[in-house]
Amino acid sequence: MELLKKRILEEGKTIGSDVVKVDMFLNHQIDVELLCEIGKEFHRLFAASNINKIVTIEASGIGIACIAAQYFSVPVVFAKKGANRNVGDNIYKADVYSFTKGITTTIGISKDYLGPDDRVLIIDDFMANGKAVHGLINIINQAGATVEGIGIVIEKGFQPGGDALRSLGYRVESLAVIKSIDNGKIVFGN
Amino acid sequence: MELLKKRILEEGKTIGSDVVKVDMFLNHQIDVELLCEIGKEFHRLFAASNINKIVTIEASGIGIACIAAQYFSVPVVFAKKGANRNVGDNIYKADVYSFTKGITTTIGISKDYLGPDDRVLIIDDFMANGKAVHGLINIINQAGATVEGIGIVIEKGFQPGGDALRSLGYRVESLAVIKSIDNGKIVFGN
Repeated sequence: MELLKKRILEEGKTIGSDVVKVDMFLNHQIDVELLCEIGKEFHRLFAASNINKIVTIEASGIGIACIAAQYFSVPVVFAKKGANRNVGDNIYKADVYSFTKGITTTIGISKDYLGPDDRVLIIDDFMANGKAVHGLINIINQAGATVEGIGIVIEKGFQPGGDALRSLGYRVESLAVIKSIDNGKIVFGN
Repeated sequence: MELLKKRILEEGKTIGSDVVKVDMFLNHQIDVELLCEIGKEFHRLFAASNINKIVTIEASGIGIACIAAQYFSVPVVFAKKGANRNVGDNIYKADVYSFTKGITTTIGISKDYLGPDDRVLIIDDFMANGKAVHGLINIINQAGATVEGIGIVIEKGFQPGGDALRSLGYRVESLAVIKSIDNGKIVFGN
């Protein structure tokens, strides 16, 4: 997605060779106009997939998922982080290890909002090692629902998450794939 | 907002005399079509207020804020919970006590995304004691920005948050005000 790559190049801040911060338009401050274009692009890519639910994970996936869901006319369900949180015991859970934070978090989705009839598009802002998406797939499998596709805004192509999921047969569509960050220069692989 | 009150009556689950769960359409599973109507209603209420930024708090405020922001054509900034979180030290912080969880959380917004030129609409899903909104106001004040209004989807009118903010001179617009929950029966005050 050229508009997105342009914004990443113009505004993204690299740290070392593996971090690019886009919290000026994607995951702290949110440019909702850009989000609409991202949502339309996900819809263009997955319109034929007969999706009836979008699943994401709190917090920064929620805005993207909600905006995208408008174009699919489907509801969003977001996995909550941490236990309890007013959801009760009636919950599918999975553990997700974060390399960034060095901790494991339990994520959960209520059994009331995911079931065998659900054909799910997973949406998230970033994919690096893919642990969050694996956690969501685990939960979707527990529910007997189907993963129809995975839509990622920015994939770090130099980390193994995206290709590992593709090799498992999942359709992963990343709107910007960063191939490398070399002396602050971002090189895209798509 | 009649459509919202209808949904609360039809689907909301009360627990005792002070909890109503609406996580089937608002804050776990999200009915994005309803969210669009909520966003339009916030825009109708605050269209004259010359707002140039919407501020909310993770996680369940984000979807509502992003959908509403489309109608205002402004960006969203969401306060993050917990320290660090890849945001750095360049951050306005406030402590927020949660009665539900019985804990104090530090919320923060990067100094890069809030400043004296910002005329802010605060949006959140629920208001009870108003602690989260007070934390956001604290941060907005630190930034020298202006609070133009506060838009709440569901206010628990039997708890003091909304009226305390109104008595401080803030314009608080709640789309559904729950006056009481009596033997499972929800009574609205608006």
